[in-house]
Amino acid sequence: MSLLQSLQWRYATKKMNGQPVAQETVDYIIEAARFAPTSSGLHPFKVIEIANPELKAKIQPIAFGQSQIVDSSHLLVFAAYDEYTKERVDAVFSQQEEERGLPLGTSDAYKNQLFDSLQQQTKQQHFEHAARQAYIGFGLAIAAAAEQKVDATPMEGFNNAQLDELLNLPALGLKSVTILALGYRDIENDWLVNLKKVRISKENFVLNFN
Amino acid sequence: MSLLQSLQWRYATKKMNGQPVAQETVDYIIEAARFAPTSSGLHPFKVIEIANPELKAKIQPIAFGQSQIVDSSHLLVFAAYDEYTKERVDAVFSQQEEERGLPLGTSDAYKNQLFDSLQQQTKQQHFEHAARQAYIGFGLAIAAAAEQKVDATPMEGFNNAQLDELLNLPALGLKSVTILALGYRDIENDWLVNLKKVRISKENFVLNFN
Repeated sequence: MSLLQSLQWRYATKKMNGQPVAQETVDYIIEAARFAPTSSGLHPFKVIEIANPELKAKIQPIAFGQSQIVDSSHLLVFAAYDEYTKERVDAVFSQQEEERGLPLGTSDAYKNQLFDSLQQQTKQQHFEHAARQAYIGFGLAIAAAAEQKVDATPMEGFNNAQLDELLNLPALGLKSVTILALGYRDIENDWLVNLKKVRISKENFVLNFN
Repeated sequence: MSLLQSLQWRYATKKMNGQPVAQETVDYIIEAARFAPTSSGLHPFKVIEIANPELKAKIQPIAFGQSQIVDSSHLLVFAAYDEYTKERVDAVFSQQEEERGLPLGTSDAYKNQLFDSLQQQTKQQHFEHAARQAYIGFGLAIAAAAEQKVDATPMEGFNNAQLDELLNLPALGLKSVTILALGYRDIENDWLVNLKKVRISKENFVLNFN
């Protein structure tokens, strides 16, 4: 099945059946997000993997009671950097130089220019930029789940500040941006499963400047 | 080749060789973005497809002279809604009801709640939210290009306001957020092609709360 066919197969599962997704498949889906391309390779986000039922039960009221939170196998919380600190930027380029066997400092000109430009932005601008990068990884995780025939519900409907507090994210310099609930559809009880998938039409989506 | 293998194959191509990508393959990549899941199905972004050499030549100086702009086969400019207007939100739900054969107005309660909540946000917040959705589609287009063995360079390095002006996006209520240059690598002249792909380590990427 092609990627496009997988994307047509998937849908935002509204009711999951509680069956577990194999850990190696969850790992695969997370790996797709880890391989996301990001601006200057900064990769300014992390994935918090949650299978623990007690923790999921605490998250459910923060997410408007949505059933997928507890009926999923795993929740993947995508959390973006709250800001680009010098330490964070330095670490990216040091790792690049080291893994590529380049002399330390090879990237200094580029790195310093990047950091100068970041310093002219607010912390909120840093976070918004980091959040967008997280959404690239989020898209790739959605694609990987579809390829693996794992149902996945992309969720923005939760109280970010409360979730951050529960997961102790401020101490890590992270802010939650979105959740991907992984599991399997409960075909008999999902109101959405048999409804037509609706997307913006090609004519309304593509502006052709060829 | 699995999606993950395709993602490991791809890289941010720095030098393209000018060879064209078949139109049906470009269409396929755009279709992947069209099938992106988005918040409440709003799909608040469009793709501007550009193959025209004169137009690409005008874009190059706006994008810091990067060679992929002109050496690519196609540029896909992802542009997000500048705001969520009542018309835009209404259109999404009317289309859903129509295509699903539901009575008009079925979604009114949900739609009105959504619109009330959007009205409490600033235009800038609307745009930031729309931009994130565009990045989901961007991620899926990157995945689709990799699957099709088309090289793709994700590009944020351009002057957004100048590009918007050139493409007349303000009149369409759109703001550019990112570009995906599609083409084929120039193996002999790309400094990045043989360098190791570096990503954040698994240990630094995943926080395990299982």
